[in-house]
Amino acid sequence: MNLREAILTHATVDGDIVKVDGFLNHRVDPVVIEGVGAQIAAWMEDRQPDVLLTAEASGLPPTAAAARILGLPYIYAKKYVGPGERYSFAREISSPTKGIEYRVEVARHVLTPTMRVGIVDDFLAGGRTAAALVDIAEEAGCTVIGSAFVIEKAAAGGRALLTQRNVDVFAVETIERIENGIVVLAD
Amino acid sequence: MNLREAILTHATVDGDIVKVDGFLNHRVDPVVIEGVGAQIAAWMEDRQPDVLLTAEASGLPPTAAAARILGLPYIYAKKYVGPGERYSFAREISSPTKGIEYRVEVARHVLTPTMRVGIVDDFLAGGRTAAALVDIAEEAGCTVIGSAFVIEKAAAGGRALLTQRNVDVFAVETIERIENGIVVLAD
Repeated sequence: MNLREAILTHATVDGDIVKVDGFLNHRVDPVVIEGVGAQIAAWMEDRQPDVLLTAEASGLPPTAAAARILGLPYIYAKKYVGPGERYSFAREISSPTKGIEYRVEVARHVLTPTMRVGIVDDFLAGGRTAAALVDIAEEAGCTVIGSAFVIEKAAAGGRALLTQRNVDVFAVETIERIENGIVVLAD
Repeated sequence: MNLREAILTHATVDGDIVKVDGFLNHRVDPVVIEGVGAQIAAWMEDRQPDVLLTAEASGLPPTAAAARILGLPYIYAKKYVGPGERYSFAREISSPTKGIEYRVEVARHVLTPTMRVGIVDDFLAGGRTAAALVDIAEEAGCTVIGSAFVIEKAAAGGRALLTQRNVDVFAVETIERIENGIVVLAD
């Protein structure tokens, strides 16, 4: 079962939210995640990243799978709610789905200037998390070599936000729209 | 660099807390995590798990690495602070390091009765998180076939707690004690 089959067979729709917790972001299917990791690794490889950067927790499975294939380390930004006092690069993010503000943080000692950073996450929707990771990498003096996502929600505008920042975007699958509660994927 | 070398060379100590965020639970080193995954997979294999179960976020890297080698799916329990209303198996946990109460949850649809569940986490200290995962698996009608950790803190009592529950424990490395700010590992 590849990702496309998994989405079409097992994703459930609740309003605007596409739930993929049976194979991607709660229970992780071994065949789906290896396929996703291979596709992300193939897209990243020519761009020669030194490290992959994601945000906890649901970014971790695809990042771990791609990083293993590339033989690279990966960093996962921590998320915190409430005041911070850690020695880190940090950005505030408001989450419309969760209705809260949270902060993504990367410790300064793990991001070295001049590193080539590939950004990975499970979903690209509005692009807030990915843009925060771009900010953090650039503040650290790193070069962002591109961003890869398991599932892009085309209508949410994240691709435009990242492209404006000169960050190329790859998505393994793209949700064009939701029609009568059914997910319609791009060809 | 294997885990033992990584701990002895790169772990930092702050009071009782051993920080391994340079290679295990913030930046993940590709050689360390593959070695850890292989050792956990080797210990798990004869016990024939159907699925590995961990908690977000820092349990994910070792679980993903071991699950890939075993060719198994994995489930990561979500952590929430505040009231819950999701259709899930849940347990409350108080975290002495973080000073908060939080809840670990697993959706009912991902844990099927009679499954053989192997529990994995990065640290075994007091064993609260692992015991909550055991509770959740047993409430779901599953059999816990053992628990594996990257680093055990021997003085914190988690092994006894799990052994009392008839859950066998494996740790890749064991911290015997901290002596003058230096980590002392078991042989």
